Amino acid sequence: MNNELLESIKKLSQLEGFKDVCHEQSNNEPMPSTDVLKEIVQLARSILFPGYFGDSAVNPKTMMYHIGVNIDRLHLLLVQQIKAGMCFNCQSGMKSQDEIEQTAGRKAIDFIIQLPEIREKLHTDVIAAYNGDPAAKSFGEIIFCYPSIRAISNYRIAHALLKLDVPLIPRIITEMAHSETGIDIHPGARIGNYFTIDHGTGVVIGETAIIGDNVKMYQGVTLGAKSFPLDKDGNPIKGIDRHPHIGNDVIIYSNSTILGNITVGDGAVIGGNLWIDNNVTPGAKLSQNKNMSK
Amino acid sequence: MNNELLESIKKLSQLEGFKDVCHEQSNNEPMPSTDVLKEIVQLARSILFPGYFGDSAVNPKTMMYHIGVNIDRLHLLLVQQIKAGMCFNCQSGMKSQDEIEQTAGRKAIDFIIQLPEIREKLHTDVIAAYNGDPAAKSFGEIIFCYPSIRAISNYRIAHALLKLDVPLIPRIITEMAHSETGIDIHPGARIGNYFTIDHGTGVVIGETAIIGDNVKMYQGVTLGAKSFPLDKDGNPIKGIDRHPHIGNDVIIYSNSTILGNITVGDGAVIGGNLWIDNNVTPGAKLSQNKNMSK
Amino acid sequence: MNNELLESIKKLSQLEGFKDVCHEQSNNEPMPSTDVLKEIVQLARSILFPGYFGDSAVNPKTMMYHIGVNIDRLHLLLVQQIKAGMCFNCQSGMKSQDEIEQTAGRKAIDFIIQLPEIREKLHTDVIAAYNGDPAAKSFGEIIFCYPSIRAISNYRIAHALLKLDVPLIPRIITEMAHSETGIDIHPGARIGNYFTIDHGTGVVIGETAIIGDNVKMYQGVTLGAKSFPLDKDGNPIKGIDRHPHIGNDVIIYSNSTILGNITVGDGAVIGGNLWIDNNVTPGAKLSQNKNMSK
Amino acid sequence: MNNELLESIKKLSQLEGFKDVCHEQSNNEPMPSTDVLKEIVQLARSILFPGYFGDSAVNPKTMMYHIGVNIDRLHLLLVQQIKAGMCFNCQSGMKSQDEIEQTAGRKAIDFIIQLPEIREKLHTDVIAAYNGDPAAKSFGEIIFCYPSIRAISNYRIAHALLKLDVPLIPRIITEMAHSETGIDIHPGARIGNYFTIDHGTGVVIGETAIIGDNVKMYQGVTLGAKSFPLDKDGNPIKGIDRHPHIGNDVIIYSNSTILGNITVGDGAVIGGNLWIDNNVTPGAKLSQNKNMSK
Amino acid sequence: MNNELLESIKKLSQLEGFKDVCHEQSNNEPMPSTDVLKEIVQLARSILFPGYFGDSAVNPKTMMYHIGVNIDRLHLLLVQQIKAGMCFNCQSGMKSQDEIEQTAGRKAIDFIIQLPEIREKLHTDVIAAYNGDPAAKSFGEIIFCYPSIRAISNYRIAHALLKLDVPLIPRIITEMAHSETGIDIHPGARIGNYFTIDHGTGVVIGETAIIGDNVKMYQGVTLGAKSFPLDKDGNPIKGIDRHPHIGNDVIIYSNSTILGNITVGDGAVIGGNLWIDNNVTPGAKLSQNKNMSK
Amino acid sequence: MNNELLESIKKLSQLEGFKDVCHEQSNNEPMPSTDVLKEIVQLARSILFPGYFGDSAVNPKTMMYHIGVNIDRLHLLLVQQIKAGMCFNCQSGMKSQDEIEQTAGRKAIDFIIQLPEIREKLHTDVIAAYNGDPAAKSFGEIIFCYPSIRAISNYRIAHALLKLDVPLIPRIITEMAHSETGIDIHPGARIGNYFTIDHGTGVVIGETAIIGDNVKMYQGVTLGAKSFPLDKDGNPIKGIDRHPHIGNDVIIYSNSTILGNITVGDGAVIGGNLWIDNNVTPGAKLSQNKNMSK
Repeated sequence: MNNELLESIKKLSQLEGFKDVCHEQSNNEPMPSTDVLKEIVQLARSILFPGYFGDSAVNPKTMMYHIGVNIDRLHLLLVQQIKAGMCFNCQSGMKSQDEIEQTAGRKAIDFIIQLPEIREKLHTDVIAAYNGDPAAKSFGEIIFCYPSIRAISNYRIAHALLKLDVPLIPRIITEMAHSETGIDIHPGARIGNYFTIDHGTGVVIGETAIIGDNVKMYQGVTLGAKSFPLDKDGNPIKGIDRHPHIGNDVIIYSNSTILGNITVGDGAVIGGNLWIDNNVTPGAKLSQNKNMSK
Repeated sequence: MNNELLESIKKLSQLEGFKDVCHEQSNNEPMPSTDVLKEIVQLARSILFPGYFGDSAVNPKTMMYHIGVNIDRLHLLLVQQIKAGMCFNCQSGMKSQDEIEQTAGRKAIDFIIQLPEIREKLHTDVIAAYNGDPAAKSFGEIIFCYPSIRAISNYRIAHALLKLDVPLIPRIITEMAHSETGIDIHPGARIGNYFTIDHGTGVVIGETAIIGDNVKMYQGVTLGAKSFPLDKDGNPIKGIDRHPHIGNDVIIYSNSTILGNITVGDGAVIGGNLWIDNNVTPGAKLSQNKNMSK
Repeated sequence: MNNELLESIKKLSQLEGFKDVCHEQSNNEPMPSTDVLKEIVQLARSILFPGYFGDSAVNPKTMMYHIGVNIDRLHLLLVQQIKAGMCFNCQSGMKSQDEIEQTAGRKAIDFIIQLPEIREKLHTDVIAAYNGDPAAKSFGEIIFCYPSIRAISNYRIAHALLKLDVPLIPRIITEMAHSETGIDIHPGARIGNYFTIDHGTGVVIGETAIIGDNVKMYQGVTLGAKSFPLDKDGNPIKGIDRHPHIGNDVIIYSNSTILGNITVGDGAVIGGNLWIDNNVTPGAKLSQNKNMSK
Repeated sequence: MNNELLESIKKLSQLEGFKDVCHEQSNNEPMPSTDVLKEIVQLARSILFPGYFGDSAVNPKTMMYHIGVNIDRLHLLLVQQIKAGMCFNCQSGMKSQDEIEQTAGRKAIDFIIQLPEIREKLHTDVIAAYNGDPAAKSFGEIIFCYPSIRAISNYRIAHALLKLDVPLIPRIITEMAHSETGIDIHPGARIGNYFTIDHGTGVVIGETAIIGDNVKMYQGVTLGAKSFPLDKDGNPIKGIDRHPHIGNDVIIYSNSTILGNITVGDGAVIGGNLWIDNNVTPGAKLSQNKNMSK
Repeated sequence: MNNELLESIKKLSQLEGFKDVCHEQSNNEPMPSTDVLKEIVQLARSILFPGYFGDSAVNPKTMMYHIGVNIDRLHLLLVQQIKAGMCFNCQSGMKSQDEIEQTAGRKAIDFIIQLPEIREKLHTDVIAAYNGDPAAKSFGEIIFCYPSIRAISNYRIAHALLKLDVPLIPRIITEMAHSETGIDIHPGARIGNYFTIDHGTGVVIGETAIIGDNVKMYQGVTLGAKSFPLDKDGNPIKGIDRHPHIGNDVIIYSNSTILGNITVGDGAVIGGNLWIDNNVTPGAKLSQNKNMSK
Repeated sequence: MNNELLESIKKLSQLEGFKDVCHEQSNNEPMPSTDVLKEIVQLARSILFPGYFGDSAVNPKTMMYHIGVNIDRLHLLLVQQIKAGMCFNCQSGMKSQDEIEQTAGRKAIDFIIQLPEIREKLHTDVIAAYNGDPAAKSFGEIIFCYPSIRAISNYRIAHALLKLDVPLIPRIITEMAHSETGIDIHPGARIGNYFTIDHGTGVVIGETAIIGDNVKMYQGVTLGAKSFPLDKDGNPIKGIDRHPHIGNDVIIYSNSTILGNITVGDGAVIGGNLWIDNNVTPGAKLSQNKNMSK
């Protein structure tokens, strides 16, 4: 190791260089860990779809033991990561170690007791995917092979955590599914039952989007924001309702972009490659005017 | 662990809650395992492109030993996973353990003996990628860096398994490449030699698509279905020929969508961002009419 | 193991079958290893964004030790992989083992001493992402959750290696980010500060693209080549300047395709789903003429 | 890799060279695996002494789940290894694959249902160790720190398997404890309750030794064979009763050697460094005549 | 999984069956973990003998970084395990979570600041081993190959923890060295500088033994207790001074047993295979009267 | 991390504190690595006793591939570790990097080509163990369960390396077997064929010991040095012939100690617990005069 390297180490270790992006966790907690969060997602999936994720030899007779052990570990890791998330955001450290511990413990339990309900919702998504795709041979194939199941599982988990006011962790969890599937659903979106996305690569669903029951999307669909109102300093105002509201029984074909705080009415069918930034009436069928030169 | 958690474990373990999506494998076999299937793909890639995947220190003198050991392990794991796939689908359990064992063993061997031929096809794909991209410096760079090689490798492996009537496993294998590359090729598609996809994110190739020799695609291209004929119960009829047939020497530029059981003739060039749902004559050059407002 | 398998091993081991795609490294070095390159990227990220990547318990007091150990290991692995990259390309073996060793060592150090500067650039990218997204709550959330940070980190690392004339390795590194994020940036592109990509799946930035400061892109944007001039043998001429030059303060909305060696002027705003292959004047606001049939 | 190495590979691969020590398993089963047997021992210990071995966070409320999962895995691995052991010994292959499968499955269950009883015996050993050592602070310290608990656990597991006629596996299991603790107990020995060995390094207990209840030994004690009657070919006759029978309430101090098919009566105390090859009467106190020259 | 197994799980999960040997940790802490304690020992050894243990590529220029990172991790793990040890012993739970946390943190630091001194002592042990063995070629060979260095390292670490009143952990640490080397040193023993044990298998050094400076032992030597005074209930009285005190410059040859609270004077030489239970005068040379029958 | 810890890091990082025991490798090579040496031993055992060590599914048909891959990796690692060993000892650095590389490469090959011969010798040891133990059921059981096979394998490997003048590595390898089995054989000893050690814990065989063919030992036997002639500075003279020479067909029973450069004649039988420091005539049968007080 020569002196140039020693010099680089020194430079890279100077607080001034990284203080803006470096967090000193309050209460000396470690920061959230993406490795542990990966294990959390893997555990949750093993509980929601046993055999498909985690131990492939599980069977109905031993189910209870496997779920018990997975819940036990999930609980342990969740408390730890929720604490890390809370300390990451509340740098002022106004809460005592004990309060944080207790709050994190409460949130972890409040999340886990929702798992049966989350599982029910996910089963409706499996049914929707099966019914919607002529290439699907069984429910099992859907769970094993359809990226939308992974993306929606992470979304439903993250959404439940977000509603419990867990900071940061929900976004990391949906981003993991984005990396895995190319489907980017913000945990803040509200999505009904029987939701399915075919293929899915490139799908974006924004923070304040609302999606009804029985909605189907294809790859490349964006539910995005059209513009960001700025505050007096010229920065975007955070948290404004700015994404589409999609009704029930809507189909959106591939690569269409739906922008702004508009409404797409129940039963609408939106063709592929469209750019929509106005309300769509219920039952409307939109498709592209083709203009090609040969 | 408090009582709320114990209650959740109980609820999540009740058979009624998961019986529809939970498979009890026939013959007490474990379910297919995505972890083992990942190893199978890794082994197959190490055999097809030694040095690029697997042990980076392999060289021609020791090649035979490495391939021998990899085939030995591939065979062991394939038999196991093919059995798991067969038991997953034939829940009626009409076959005896012995028949399943024998059939799976036969299919595994029938797959492995096709590897030399699969490798030959993949070499034509490497050549096509090299010839088609001015940024490529060598065949080696193609194999190391081009996601299409990974996606097409998985497709060619999965297609061979599907032709051997191996259930479920082929779809899981192409979906692994989809997650890794953003390229989603159904194992049922039939694809000729010298096939290449540049960049590739968002590409979708459907179950009954047919692609000739020497075809090149860019990112975001969809070869999809236009509509799904429904049976009398209103469910999509499975297995109908519903995707495009692409001729030889065709180029399809980025983000174009080609839908339905249509034909794209030999030598056609399809520009980017197009939406095609009618036959394209051989040699046609299609491009978008631009309509922009400034 | 039956005779059919032994036969397959023999066939797959014959040099004729793989000689075109198989590299015999000069100087008996192993080939580059994607596993080691993954560790290199993980180390570099741990150095550039400590706590977010790598050990989540690092804090300012222990920062120096962690960075020191990470640099030490990064240096070791980089020398090894740069050597492997050099031997992969210069098959003629004109350099002695000693020269290669020395050159690789020099390049590794020349790369590492740029890390402080790379970190500074990346911090501008974090700021740009934060300012540009109303959904972002803190710099920390950006680093943890935004795929563009991972893609741009890999790009900035790979670009620095490419400028040092390291062969092959830079392309593998950006391709790793492509697989992880769906964002495909060629290491040869030149990109200014305060660069951000929202969502990002499907973005493609070509080898000779130039991007100014303070540019923002959305998912699905392509900066591609329009055509490849062929040499007298009909092969594409490698290395020609063929991608767009984007000015400062430009915004490009989702799924737009910008092709060829054109210029997009400072302050231009390019709407979504557009297909651009002519120069765009500074300050221009382009958007799609909608043509929909209901 | 030069030709000398290739030549060595060839020589080492010739069947003549290793046929005597190489087993071709009947029924194409793999051989027993010491790695899997290590996991089996670890699982059994986790079930017998939860928290001390395996997951250190287990507690009475979650005990059932952890034991259930561990039994599930133990069962799976045991069936596999018992089969491997049976195929290793019955090279004649007189049993069908189905018979072996069924027999191994039966033996695995017959072993597991003895675990509650084995645990009870081991608890008497913990009590004996605690009562016998003034340095011990709690039962927990005994389980964590005393090598005799590990050695006796493996012995009691192996003895139960041996009584079920499982070949080979029991010896491998006690040898694992020998390597770990220096205590070498043959699985064929018969040992009563409340057995303890202090320190233990160098202890040897032979195949046909019998030990009563409440016996205590120190390091270096041998219960060995004195001579091996030879058969007409001059080979030792296998399986003859040739080791000591130790009564109840006996103490044997360090490094004493007790040889042959003799009896040590109830309540005897045998001093250290003695060499005994005759019966010892009940209640006898033996010690060494010291003979030292200064 | 059949009903017999389910029955076994039930039996093994009943609290009555394991309540005596099962610890419910106070404050819901997990129990000490032997896996974590193994990492602790590995870290401490890497700090005390860098390069020999841990990363073999460390060198003086990077030493500080490696030691810093190792101390950081050692501290983290030690606090956790000391807490676990404290909760294991003080079942009454009289201390609050906060007090335990603080006390454990203090003890961890008080241990770590002794490491420089522990290293100095260990260096004297290396010198003694080198000087005492004609087969040793260098200090480095001693550290790499001599089991006594591993056993004495663990002892010196454990002794320091014991003096800080850390419960349980010290015993587990010396027992790890016992398993690794066959040398069993109780952490309560007090041992001077320049201590060496050649070969070492079977050595036992009891809890209240005292050893001066510059003492050398061979394999199989026991410094044990002769008898255990019983309390009125017939149980051994814990903690009484019952082991030998060995002076300075003493040599004890292989397999000798020294028992009871006796004194071996400075400069004594005790031959092999002896049984000593009386004081030995300074400078005495004891050896065995040989009595052999041919 | 508080200031006391930072202070400790500083102290522990000061060169003065560790310079005597710290090696700065010449030529900037890393030090030998015990982890890599463990893999080397594991590879060598997998080659010498395939199926028993390493992959348990190997069979005669695939043997060649497995041995080829194992030799390939063994060669790679051996060259690296032999270099590290050479740099560890020749601190003067008189050899160039190239010479060391070449010499290490030569030694690695010279070792590997001896493996067939080493295997033959080890097979004689297996036969001897089988013939000598009435408890042994098959050759396979010997290889799986007898610690002497592991200890003698490591010894024969290490002895071959030592004869090739490889520094340091041989001692580390035999010490690994010492830790695993309690049998401590110096790599310098010369040992004939058909050698076996029963149980083995506590056996010590010194550097200059010579053992004939067909010798059998039991646990606790020492072949040691009696005294170490000192040089004029009072240090032991290194390398002098100081251990026993054992003839052919000798049996040495448990815990006997044979000291000094004496000769034990062919066919001698040495009883247990004896202390021998004079020549033993061929065919002699020695046993202990028992002297016990009751």
